[in-house]
Amino acid sequence: MGGKFYVGIDLGGMSAKAGLFDAEGTMLAKESVKTSKDAGYEATVMSLAELVQKVCQKGGVSQAHVKGVGVGSPGIINGQEGIVVSWTNFGWENKALAKDLSAALQKIPVKISNDANVAALGEARFGAGKQYSDSILITLGTGVGSGIILQNKIFEGYRGGAGEAGHMTLVVGGIRCTCGRRGCFEQYASATALLRETKRVMREHKDSRMWKYAPTLEQVDGTTSFTAAKEGDAAAQEVVKNYIMYLSEGILNLVNCFRPQAILVGGGVSGQGEYLLQPIREYVNEHLFVGFDRIPLAIVRADLGNDAGIWGAYALALDA
Amino acid sequence: MGGKFYVGIDLGGMSAKAGLFDAEGTMLAKESVKTSKDAGYEATVMSLAELVQKVCQKGGVSQAHVKGVGVGSPGIINGQEGIVVSWTNFGWENKALAKDLSAALQKIPVKISNDANVAALGEARFGAGKQYSDSILITLGTGVGSGIILQNKIFEGYRGGAGEAGHMTLVVGGIRCTCGRRGCFEQYASATALLRETKRVMREHKDSRMWKYAPTLEQVDGTTSFTAAKEGDAAAQEVVKNYIMYLSEGILNLVNCFRPQAILVGGGVSGQGEYLLQPIREYVNEHLFVGFDRIPLAIVRADLGNDAGIWGAYALALDA
Repeated sequence: MGGKFYVGIDLGGMSAKAGLFDAEGTMLAKESVKTSKDAGYEATVMSLAELVQKVCQKGGVSQAHVKGVGVGSPGIINGQEGIVVSWTNFGWENKALAKDLSAALQKIPVKISNDANVAALGEARFGAGKQYSDSILITLGTGVGSGIILQNKIFEGYRGGAGEAGHMTLVVGGIRCTCGRRGCFEQYASATALLRETKRVMREHKDSRMWKYAPTLEQVDGTTSFTAAKEGDAAAQEVVKNYIMYLSEGILNLVNCFRPQAILVGGGVSGQGEYLLQPIREYVNEHLFVGFDRIPLAIVRADLGNDAGIWGAYALALDA
Repeated sequence: MGGKFYVGIDLGGMSAKAGLFDAEGTMLAKESVKTSKDAGYEATVMSLAELVQKVCQKGGVSQAHVKGVGVGSPGIINGQEGIVVSWTNFGWENKALAKDLSAALQKIPVKISNDANVAALGEARFGAGKQYSDSILITLGTGVGSGIILQNKIFEGYRGGAGEAGHMTLVVGGIRCTCGRRGCFEQYASATALLRETKRVMREHKDSRMWKYAPTLEQVDGTTSFTAAKEGDAAAQEVVKNYIMYLSEGILNLVNCFRPQAILVGGGVSGQGEYLLQPIREYVNEHLFVGFDRIPLAIVRADLGNDAGIWGAYALALDA
């Protein structure tokens, strides 16, 4: 098959996933490889190169027709210079990933950025944000990820590291965070935080309907409080109300700082849909320094799911 | 006098100040007029036009040689469209200030932006930030003002209103703010907040040296706690330490969001110089999600003082 093709890679600590795309935005094939911090940097670069080869084979495209590769990587990334400034889990410091992967791919141009930023770019270009030039993706998972898109491009600050919204302080002196500080947004708005609060309130309310859905605390998940709240359980409603309040306060901070057109909400908790989003809209509208009436703001659910990273990496590749 | 000239205007609720500049960045004259919310929009536009005329006369320049006028205005400004979206104090809503002032000035091009943003632009182009492409000015006064400069330009978000850092939440459920919300940054880091805390601690510590510098609470000002703290007064040191902690937490949030090269600190409290700035550097460096060693960050004192707005408006005029 001739023409122009692109590969988008979502690099993670357990696996790397790749999508092969044509220039018109059709995904032709998907592949993945395992990753491990024990493999070391050079071997990981080689396995990413092999991943490109594999996904091309699967899609029936010669690697010679791949015009660009994009990579979303964990850690602090300086996208302009193509450098992984720091990926703590893998022990990477100042690795020239874009240059090294390009060298392993017979000089196919490679562009990299932070994985959360790349997911935001995917949603902004191909997902829930595609009608907006300025949007912020907030991902509610183990932590709170965020990516900021301004004028259709990733905003990563002067030399990378911008948009670390999960670690903005929401409560000075508040709950201790994994980053070593206190009161970070993700200690209140992540799925992890939701589970912690669900369990805390369940211990205090032995008669709560939440026990129906999670007979033991080990069975608590991100839906427990929401499900019981919808059935009118007061304790569960308190958990949900507090969760939404903190989440909304963090969103307000981002809106006051960046004033985007849209906030896209992704990650497991976003599965609650309008039951989660409508109260956020009401809270944000009520508390926004400049109201919705003056500068409209959409708050919507992200819709590319786990593929947002691959799609965003494809968008990066198009610009490579 | 022939050549190209520019006028920068700093519009405020009590007065408007103007500077006349040549193309090389020399300020040739300064003038001001009183402003009042009772005057109404049209009359205010006319008095700004007269101000341009006055400053040109004072500088001996024909208004015909003025190639651009810049205006920093309070309120929410959509600079791209030249519109004051909202200036609550003056009751302005959706006023086409750039177009209207240009019409009153025989079509001299006019550019406008928010006053805090324009002051930040002044510092970034001609003051403490001139060696940096990305900087944030934080002004510690009655409130906390902020302006964000990215790639040498004002960042005002999709349609204005970005960079309202004074109203980011630092303590969910914290001290009530003038904006109606709770726990805003400026309730902890403004000069007003410093005075409030100074008085509170003085009431609790009748033996504090702070009473030496302010024999009555009415005499407390922004220097009271700092002066006594430098002399070793424990109560005053506690006030200063807390103030710096909250200020540093807010700066951390801005750095995690925007990752600039420099934070410029202005306003009355910044007169404390290194006694204020060095502990902020230490706190921010210790708590930054990505350390100084990886992505350098300067924290310096703003140096244009009250003229930052005029200089920034001149920079706007150059782009008009």
